[in-house]
Amino acid sequence: MKNIYILGAAGSIGMQTLDIIKSHPNEFNVVGISLGHNHVINEEILKSFKVSIVALRTDEKLKDYQNQYPHITFVYGLEGLLDLVRYPIKGTVVNALSGSAGLIPTIEAIKSRKDIALANKETLVMAGDIINKLVENYNVKLIPIDSEHSALWQCIQHEVIDAIDKIVITASGGAFRDLSRHDLKHVTKENALKHPNWSMGAKITIDSATMMNKGLEVIEAHYLFHLPYDQIETILHKESHVHGLVFFKDGTIKASISPSNMRIPIQYALFYPHRTPFDSHYKLENLTFKDMDMKRYPLLALAYKVGKEAGLLPTVMNAANEAAVKLFLEDKIAFLDIEKIVYETVNAYQNNLHPTIEEIIETDEIIQQSIFKHYEKR
Amino acid sequence: MKNIYILGAAGSIGMQTLDIIKSHPNEFNVVGISLGHNHVINEEILKSFKVSIVALRTDEKLKDYQNQYPHITFVYGLEGLLDLVRYPIKGTVVNALSGSAGLIPTIEAIKSRKDIALANKETLVMAGDIINKLVENYNVKLIPIDSEHSALWQCIQHEVIDAIDKIVITASGGAFRDLSRHDLKHVTKENALKHPNWSMGAKITIDSATMMNKGLEVIEAHYLFHLPYDQIETILHKESHVHGLVFFKDGTIKASISPSNMRIPIQYALFYPHRTPFDSHYKLENLTFKDMDMKRYPLLALAYKVGKEAGLLPTVMNAANEAAVKLFLEDKIAFLDIEKIVYETVNAYQNNLHPTIEEIIETDEIIQQSIFKHYEKR
Repeated sequence: MKNIYILGAAGSIGMQTLDIIKSHPNEFNVVGISLGHNHVINEEILKSFKVSIVALRTDEKLKDYQNQYPHITFVYGLEGLLDLVRYPIKGTVVNALSGSAGLIPTIEAIKSRKDIALANKETLVMAGDIINKLVENYNVKLIPIDSEHSALWQCIQHEVIDAIDKIVITASGGAFRDLSRHDLKHVTKENALKHPNWSMGAKITIDSATMMNKGLEVIEAHYLFHLPYDQIETILHKESHVHGLVFFKDGTIKASISPSNMRIPIQYALFYPHRTPFDSHYKLENLTFKDMDMKRYPLLALAYKVGKEAGLLPTVMNAANEAAVKLFLEDKIAFLDIEKIVYETVNAYQNNLHPTIEEIIETDEIIQQSIFKHYEKR
Repeated sequence: MKNIYILGAAGSIGMQTLDIIKSHPNEFNVVGISLGHNHVINEEILKSFKVSIVALRTDEKLKDYQNQYPHITFVYGLEGLLDLVRYPIKGTVVNALSGSAGLIPTIEAIKSRKDIALANKETLVMAGDIINKLVENYNVKLIPIDSEHSALWQCIQHEVIDAIDKIVITASGGAFRDLSRHDLKHVTKENALKHPNWSMGAKITIDSATMMNKGLEVIEAHYLFHLPYDQIETILHKESHVHGLVFFKDGTIKASISPSNMRIPIQYALFYPHRTPFDSHYKLENLTFKDMDMKRYPLLALAYKVGKEAGLLPTVMNAANEAAVKLFLEDKIAFLDIEKIVYETVNAYQNNLHPTIEEIIETDEIIQQSIFKHYEKR
């Protein structure tokens, strides 16, 4: 039995993780979870899994939950997330939190010597170097859940990093891939939320439409695979079947292919290093590729620049994007304003090359708050 | 320094092997080679590589060679090939012989505890079980050179065979892929020798046009990867860039991709388990796939049937095909007669399920000779 903790259990990745665990009751034991605001979903989860500790968002309904489930320890807020990952039973923490909130819990989970199955890319974007050092010092495993990184991870297993010429991350192009930049002026939130291939959370779906998501993935890959940015490329692949390709220096390319179903990489991370049957009903289809157009997707170009500069800049870019996407989802700004806000914020920032975790967290908050203030005033 | 022996050094695979070795003079030492009938090529090779032993086809020019290269040991014929692979210096034998002639030297090389880099698929088609037992007993490595098997091999490295749902071997469709069976009645040798993607020897190019080559590869894969035939599929892929795909039971597919250049799998086998740079100038292009049509390619369908029946039948099929292709290349039969001869020979044969090596060799000779006799009489 593998002990599992799930941060963000009520989200898209979290629910699919629970679903996999439900189909393999003899393999996993869910020790602890963090839940969201939707009490119907929360109840459903709590009735289906015998967990020991639950982190709630706030203390609003803490007493009600505690009365209803007296055998469970309920905690809340950021401190609650930390109590959860520090819980004294060895296991793997699935980090399926959305956005910068995922960073601190990852750090505490590593310090509690728990393995990490990482769906929260902000963790590595904001603090890749620090996380890598912690993973090494505490000797834990860090396994990616993102489909692209899972694909690359699988192609790289047992290969020598020095034999790699480059890795290539595929991009579907998101909801607006058939639109020109001119067309983007008048797109709506509803348009942006219609991803052609994947059913995912709102934030990542918007990030796919702006290609910021691919930019964050490039930075994540840099830290995950210890490769310089000039060995990390992206390519347009509208089918979303090939998730990653590894080009070896000897002329061979390994590709990892699967249908657009997050269950496959989640299950891989849960069962790693073993593979467990899952019938995906996939039939190999034609696969098309197109060079990435950096002018069409300026946020991807920016991510490369920001990634290379490193330090606090990736945190600044990520925070600006997180705030801007939130404003867009609240109908307070237009789609192209996301790019504008991210560019302006990054350009105005004086980088700090060796930030501490405290500085990273503080910067993330300051940037997000200042953007909210500015745009909510208007 | 790795010591290398090359059987069939003057052939297509052999020459490319020598070319790779020439570009890595500090990595390899060519100890022994077998040569062909073309004395110009033979001279060229002997001048470029300091070999210790050379197997000639016949004793015709043995004395001339011996006088010209007094420091080299010259041997000839089948016995010469055996002297070559028994030569008392440890190393890897690249078996690039064409046809059934490759079997006995492979067996003797294994018995001399030499690793095998195998381009001669007939070795496994005719005696897969026997070879697998010898490889195990003598504890040598058997590494495939065929591009499809090299691709599958690379995708399977460090994976568990039990996690595999199926392996898929790609087929370009050969010279006549755009013709219907009706159109095949009047095709010529010159047409058949024009492979759309690969530049290879005459025998294998004809085998590609009849799809017998894919049939032999399916049987080769069965023995190489220890998978039953219902887990081995073929698919039409006209670009010949994806060489093999491994479908895992967990929904993931690994594919190995490279341009149609035999240098890549040969180099992989030579340097195995390390990868060495080779600039293939490959740019990822669109990849198309089409279900295999077993009615269009009856020899592939036959190969599955024959492979499953095993015993002497694969040897019978291979011998009939080898003889028929030779007759076709000598303009003695039409293209579709190849299929006819192979089918009739296999159908007329009473199988022997547990043949000895002697029976395999004898059957190969008897079948080939009887076909030659029959068609040369006409």
